[in-house]
Amino acid sequence: MKQTRLENGKLTSLTAAIRDAGLKDGMTVSFHHHLRNGDFVLNTVMAEIASLGIKNITINASSLFDCHAPLIDHIKSGVVSALECAYMGGRIGRAVSNGILDKPVIFRSHGGRPADIESGKSHIDVAFIAAPSSDCMGNCTGKEGTSACGSLGYAFADAQYADKVVVLTDNLTPYPLTSFSINETFVDYVVQVEKIGDPEGIVSGTTRITRDPIGLLMADYAANVIRHSGLLKDGFSFQTGAGGASLAAAKYLKEIMLEEKVSGSFGMGGITSYLVDMLESGCFQSLIDVQCFDLVAVESLKKNPRHREVSASHYASPIAKSAVVNSLDVVILGATEIDTDFNVNVHTDSNGVIMGGSGGHSDTAAGAKMTMIIAPLVRARLPIISEKVLCTTTPGSTVDVLVTQRGIAVNPLRSDLRDRLKSAGLNIVDIHDLYKIALASTGEPKPLSRTGRVVADVIYRDGTRIDQIRQVGQ
Amino acid sequence: MKQTRLENGKLTSLTAAIRDAGLKDGMTVSFHHHLRNGDFVLNTVMAEIASLGIKNITINASSLFDCHAPLIDHIKSGVVSALECAYMGGRIGRAVSNGILDKPVIFRSHGGRPADIESGKSHIDVAFIAAPSSDCMGNCTGKEGTSACGSLGYAFADAQYADKVVVLTDNLTPYPLTSFSINETFVDYVVQVEKIGDPEGIVSGTTRITRDPIGLLMADYAANVIRHSGLLKDGFSFQTGAGGASLAAAKYLKEIMLEEKVSGSFGMGGITSYLVDMLESGCFQSLIDVQCFDLVAVESLKKNPRHREVSASHYASPIAKSAVVNSLDVVILGATEIDTDFNVNVHTDSNGVIMGGSGGHSDTAAGAKMTMIIAPLVRARLPIISEKVLCTTTPGSTVDVLVTQRGIAVNPLRSDLRDRLKSAGLNIVDIHDLYKIALASTGEPKPLSRTGRVVADVIYRDGTRIDQIRQVGQ
Repeated sequence: MKQTRLENGKLTSLTAAIRDAGLKDGMTVSFHHHLRNGDFVLNTVMAEIASLGIKNITINASSLFDCHAPLIDHIKSGVVSALECAYMGGRIGRAVSNGILDKPVIFRSHGGRPADIESGKSHIDVAFIAAPSSDCMGNCTGKEGTSACGSLGYAFADAQYADKVVVLTDNLTPYPLTSFSINETFVDYVVQVEKIGDPEGIVSGTTRITRDPIGLLMADYAANVIRHSGLLKDGFSFQTGAGGASLAAAKYLKEIMLEEKVSGSFGMGGITSYLVDMLESGCFQSLIDVQCFDLVAVESLKKNPRHREVSASHYASPIAKSAVVNSLDVVILGATEIDTDFNVNVHTDSNGVIMGGSGGHSDTAAGAKMTMIIAPLVRARLPIISEKVLCTTTPGSTVDVLVTQRGIAVNPLRSDLRDRLKSAGLNIVDIHDLYKIALASTGEPKPLSRTGRVVADVIYRDGTRIDQIRQVGQ
Repeated sequence: MKQTRLENGKLTSLTAAIRDAGLKDGMTVSFHHHLRNGDFVLNTVMAEIASLGIKNITINASSLFDCHAPLIDHIKSGVVSALECAYMGGRIGRAVSNGILDKPVIFRSHGGRPADIESGKSHIDVAFIAAPSSDCMGNCTGKEGTSACGSLGYAFADAQYADKVVVLTDNLTPYPLTSFSINETFVDYVVQVEKIGDPEGIVSGTTRITRDPIGLLMADYAANVIRHSGLLKDGFSFQTGAGGASLAAAKYLKEIMLEEKVSGSFGMGGITSYLVDMLESGCFQSLIDVQCFDLVAVESLKKNPRHREVSASHYASPIAKSAVVNSLDVVILGATEIDTDFNVNVHTDSNGVIMGGSGGHSDTAAGAKMTMIIAPLVRARLPIISEKVLCTTTPGSTVDVLVTQRGIAVNPLRSDLRDRLKSAGLNIVDIHDLYKIALASTGEPKPLSRTGRVVADVIYRDGTRIDQIRQVGQ
């Protein structure tokens, strides 16, 4: 009746792990994207699956980057027949837009993905966890090791709900790894590999603020919108992405918070050095981290107990009893397109080609008291504002403010906010006027044909299909 | 489509929480026992349930202590009709043994309880979590606050699997509490109360080593058994309880480890100052903590990242992909009785009256490479060794060594270990001979009648019923 573990714990080879996990034709495997564009694990695993002759696999990845382009060949050869993700980089995006897959890609949000996994709507047969450190029983973390990526937040649901879980690591630590994020109770196999990723691609050395004058102008507008929103007071919480103008807005916001002695509660997001700096400067009491964007963030998560890793569900699940996004005051987000109803597209470019996805876009927009989009009026000689976005990532009902270099538009649903910003003297413009200004500079863009077959379904965080993306010519 | 939280988050009154959770006659509520004999929460909640006129409640508590004696009145009045737990103190134990409940108590182990919750075998309608600190959304921890108790490990499964979860706290912190052990995704209601417990009862100021010469002799034997077991080498892992002789054994073991320069991997258990001292002295790389027994342990868990809180499942679940008990080298456990087949009773006293329960006894025994029982041959003029224990808590097949003041008995299943200890010159005695020595001093105890109706079912960690406890006269 003894249940004592083997000396080598769960250590095995990748081949044996795939075989022993019972992976077969038609099953679903999952990956997480904390190693970002430096990830080796997805390609290594898929090459092994291919060499084992397994076909017709569905990949459910939290995100897919350009480094995962070898997937295109696995699709062509029939190893992979379906993709599900919250974000897809341009290389695979273009192939999908060109019709490489018979089945539509399923796009979810960073909160919707774990919700569907937890509720059983999307079943994972075998999850592969890229772990910068793991012990031989599968207690693992992203905070340590030469491939350290910080948070492993997106992988929690995969580990908890997949039938079988394989941890791949390039830093095998003595048992027990006490800094575990994911623990051994969920892990079936541990595979030691030479490198799980390229540190250059995993995190950028530093994230960079914009130097572009238009970006800086928009950042200044954005910071002033926050200043006068009525939300910037003790307890203030904030999320921003890693775009250059958003980071500049964070920098300006920091100056305002220090000047006005505002003691915020938390910063959240993909965490960058700018948010770490705000934490350490006393702007926030804490950082909530589902993903690290740079090395400063990784170091901070490792050392500062007020910088805390959370699961994607804790971050943004729509079916959890609550998620941190519900407590967010302000989020700054980007857009490839926004329409006059404030619907936002971050799935496709202006030609309708897939080059992104929601990530946490629609989750944070739904949760935040004020959702702000920063976007220049024109990009690559095309207007950012349209009458109807090519793809709705985030519904306009959850978007409050659009900041452009030519003025600030407030969603008519938020007349309270518009009045407040107007009386503060900010440059408030009707979004239809911004649309006309954009068109005046670009001319009327020629309408895109939207008759191709469906290549992607966009599932909103509540589980409903909010849009579809159609094939575009090669 | 916004999903923004209320200003006060999930704060509500206990009455409203119970009502809104939909608690009705015949349902099951759960509690955890980290506040030990200082817990106010179970009594407060049950008084409120009683005052709401709700009847026929099943209580599933990780453990019940003497401070919970008001339950006896709730049983008499029909508010409570069934108890499930892993340990029961003597006051309620005696009432149960005397037949106060119609339904048998269900005893599980600390690993079996969360396993049954997770597998759906035992369903919890409403879980009540005593939290020394919580924010208004339910992110909570035991590490901070005036009622700090350290680990909340036993409560994780309750939080994750109960239909409704109510957090009670006497230290409401700003949102977000980054040191959370249990997070807001699981919590429905947060109730602020004046005191969740009496710090004097929650943790003893210090845990104390025995000064009894028999205890010290057994501790010396035990430490030498470990020294010569073949297990005391780099990577060594160890658990011991908080009994006086076990703590003395830990102290002797520390001296041996320092002398022999053994660098152990982890200490585990209910954590005491003795294990913290071993961590800080370099005997272990880490401590794994499902429960703190004293203030030194609470402080250490809060401050030392190598001292890590784990869930009861991570500690000991028999259905997890693995648990830490599977990696344990040596565990020292107690016994109220042990029989000549090495079966151990920690449920009843020698009169068959309930005064304990497995806790992690059977879990660690099953996982450890060497399970050692320390017990004096005679207690209260009754022999500790018998031909057949009154109640089997832990099967003899998982028990390797019995250490008494009159010698060391090794389970015949472990002849390898017996030979090893014998050649090291230890005083190895057949358990039947120890039995005779005990009887020679006490005389043959008069056999107990075991014909009363069943008052408790003892469920082994694998889900099978390993024994039953019968009513004894008042």
